[in-house]
Amino acid sequence: MDGTADIGLIGLGVMGANLSLNIAEKGHRIAVFNRTAARTEAFLENAGALRSNIVPCYTIADLAAAIRPPRPVIVMVQAGKAVDEQIALLRGVLSDNDIIIDAGNANFRDTMRRFDELKSTGLTFIGMGVSGGEEGARNGPSIMVGGREESWKRVEAVLTAIAARYKGEPCAAWLGENGAGHFVKTIHNGIEYADMQMIAEIYGLMRDGLGMPAREIGEVFAGWNKGRLNSYLIEITAAVLAAEDPETGQPVVDIILDRAGQKGTGRWSVIEAQTMGVPATAIEAAVAARVISGMRGERLAAERVYGKATARLDGDPATSLRDMELALLAGKIAAYAQGFAVMDAASNEFGWGLPLPTVARIWRAGCIIRSQFLDAIAEAFAAAGSADNLLMAPSFVAMMKEAHPSLRRIVARASEAGLPVPALSSALAYFDAYRQGRGTTNLVQAQRDFFGAHGFERLDADGAFHGPWSSAAQHGDPKQV
Amino acid sequence: MDGTADIGLIGLGVMGANLSLNIAEKGHRIAVFNRTAARTEAFLENAGALRSNIVPCYTIADLAAAIRPPRPVIVMVQAGKAVDEQIALLRGVLSDNDIIIDAGNANFRDTMRRFDELKSTGLTFIGMGVSGGEEGARNGPSIMVGGREESWKRVEAVLTAIAARYKGEPCAAWLGENGAGHFVKTIHNGIEYADMQMIAEIYGLMRDGLGMPAREIGEVFAGWNKGRLNSYLIEITAAVLAAEDPETGQPVVDIILDRAGQKGTGRWSVIEAQTMGVPATAIEAAVAARVISGMRGERLAAERVYGKATARLDGDPATSLRDMELALLAGKIAAYAQGFAVMDAASNEFGWGLPLPTVARIWRAGCIIRSQFLDAIAEAFAAAGSADNLLMAPSFVAMMKEAHPSLRRIVARASEAGLPVPALSSALAYFDAYRQGRGTTNLVQAQRDFFGAHGFERLDADGAFHGPWSSAAQHGDPKQV
Repeated sequence: MDGTADIGLIGLGVMGANLSLNIAEKGHRIAVFNRTAARTEAFLENAGALRSNIVPCYTIADLAAAIRPPRPVIVMVQAGKAVDEQIALLRGVLSDNDIIIDAGNANFRDTMRRFDELKSTGLTFIGMGVSGGEEGARNGPSIMVGGREESWKRVEAVLTAIAARYKGEPCAAWLGENGAGHFVKTIHNGIEYADMQMIAEIYGLMRDGLGMPAREIGEVFAGWNKGRLNSYLIEITAAVLAAEDPETGQPVVDIILDRAGQKGTGRWSVIEAQTMGVPATAIEAAVAARVISGMRGERLAAERVYGKATARLDGDPATSLRDMELALLAGKIAAYAQGFAVMDAASNEFGWGLPLPTVARIWRAGCIIRSQFLDAIAEAFAAAGSADNLLMAPSFVAMMKEAHPSLRRIVARASEAGLPVPALSSALAYFDAYRQGRGTTNLVQAQRDFFGAHGFERLDADGAFHGPWSSAAQHGDPKQV
Repeated sequence: MDGTADIGLIGLGVMGANLSLNIAEKGHRIAVFNRTAARTEAFLENAGALRSNIVPCYTIADLAAAIRPPRPVIVMVQAGKAVDEQIALLRGVLSDNDIIIDAGNANFRDTMRRFDELKSTGLTFIGMGVSGGEEGARNGPSIMVGGREESWKRVEAVLTAIAARYKGEPCAAWLGENGAGHFVKTIHNGIEYADMQMIAEIYGLMRDGLGMPAREIGEVFAGWNKGRLNSYLIEITAAVLAAEDPETGQPVVDIILDRAGQKGTGRWSVIEAQTMGVPATAIEAAVAARVISGMRGERLAAERVYGKATARLDGDPATSLRDMELALLAGKIAAYAQGFAVMDAASNEFGWGLPLPTVARIWRAGCIIRSQFLDAIAEAFAAAGSADNLLMAPSFVAMMKEAHPSLRRIVARASEAGLPVPALSSALAYFDAYRQGRGTTNLVQAQRDFFGAHGFERLDADGAFHGPWSSAAQHGDPKQV
């Protein structure tokens, strides 16, 4: 006799438990299994009234038996080998058309491989990006689904029910075949790195350049959160800057070590962007900033040798703060432009047909980078009809025209003061290079032809040419290639 | 009867032909083979008096027979599949202890694989990086060897004879096992990208920011080549800027399209740096700049929408030029520091024991980034005794202290003028972050703990902690993890 649960879940860690409670709360029956039974028991005790929608299972066979076919099973375990182990176990108990859903932070290349490995088994596979942290998992995450559309159809009701909502629209969608969901989640995190880093840079300018205490900086961010920068990350920046350490009475941020950890997703974003030849310099700068933050001993030693930066920003502080708000907006636009360009390239590379407006829409709520800004991006991409660079969408052109002068003033003054702004300056350089009709790589091409006979193109004629370098005796017989 | 040639070579393209002539000229007997006999014939005709040291072969078996055992055979074909094909053919004609030498621009991961694949065959493998372009191959390249030390011993005499010399010392060395040589060549090229890009950025500032014609810019570079920037790349920059297009009478650089090509090595540098978690932001910026240069249609469209940058640099031109010279020096120091840090990390990762002073020494002549500057790097690493960051070597501290104020003035003024300086600003941000004792990722850690309960370290106590975020109702029960 077939089971009655709508869906199953393996792995009752915080994320898995919260997702399960979310599913049960939305009226869907969920069968759950955890390797250690004690955790299942503890989970049930905390489930309260939701208990009635939860089917606890103590073997993986029981789990399979408890679900209505075709059976979708969410695997929420640590990314990597543990996922492959669970898939191997599930293959023993699932049947044709059942669906294994990896909801962890998988590298999309692993997802592609798993998708292929399951092709001949009759089972199907979904790689599902989930953003929003523990709180999002419980109350409404952003859900990015990759896999066969028919697999999505089977789980669509459950996933749209549990997802966050933006003005009533669920932040869950099917984005394309195989690795599409996990890829989009990876780029979400890459953009998150850049967004957080640029906020940290501006925080540093206020702290070191304007000498403001944490609480005041928090108030500035709280103010900005009422304007165009309104977003979850700005909101929590204001909140953490306002928080006091109960033990010392100091602002919490002032007692936290300046050494940031990272998971793989920021780095993966950069590697995939590089592999496809798409600039993602603001994300790269953010990943590098975290790495450098980890070299604390070296940093302290270098500061002793080179001395502290002069660190004070010239000019009127109120003007500086207005510039910083717009600088953050301009930097953010450039970073998001890069992230979306990477997704567009991947969509072509892997044949996903990624719907960029939909990606922006399901990021408007639930996920870490959620913001009204993403609503504007969704509109811009929907209007463009094609995947033009975000920097060319009319609404963003208007914002960028207003904001880029502030970004360049801030980068200039931070550079002069010795305060590091790696992500903001990368964003500015990207913009300036992107809008420069006549660049400077004509010199690079001349050099490459000079030492490597690579040839170059001319502005005034088609074909490939060599330069008249013979006078320099570098090449014996320069001629058209 | 065994052959008498000291070495063999497959692939008489320009690089292979030039290497062969170089070997023959140094008194070593070389057996050569090319897939098409006509090319072998043409090569012989051009060999002149060197003909007596060349043994032309028309089958791969003849090639093997012509060489004195253990037989070293240089494979100089296009990187990729062609190399594997040649290895497969050579396995049919070589014997125990013979040595296959891949002298192409292989990805070092392919070299590692080939090394492993040949392990059980009795043959050994060398991955050999060769830099210097066509001219270097003929008259003295820089040669970076990875493989077994005993394989190196067999070819050491030939390779040191043909290599470039710096004050009498040959620019060829064994650097470590398996992929060491090709890895070092990859990073050489990554640094070359950054070096060329920073030169192009400064060229752009003179052209667009100071309104100087190409010939004048060339004279400035020629002047700098007599100072601390003295290097092959500055020398050829002066040369190409001085060159006139015979057809139009214009400076050649002014008729060259600003769209630069790239091979894989710049990108590989970045990917490997990312994989190991080492900042290589100046190289990344340079790779991105080439990519953006390729988006010429988009750039022209963006310039139409945003308008041309204001583009003029304020201030006295003579002062600007002095700043630019020092800015280039400071940027170069930061970029080389990154490149050497990547090699140091790879050396640990792959167990190569890369001798960094030796790497710097064999780059002093023959290769594209050759310079006196590398002599200073060799001394710095030899003196350090360990692989400290180049930014901490006393001689570089002195240079950087003198030069970084100019770098920040140039980045600031270029940023204000709208002239892109991606590599220079990345180099500055790297330096400023590296020498900042108290960074800003304390805020990032607070944010990560707020939304993901990642925990943070405190400045004043050991252990991992959560913040008192409960007031924000984000987490139910914050406590020490």
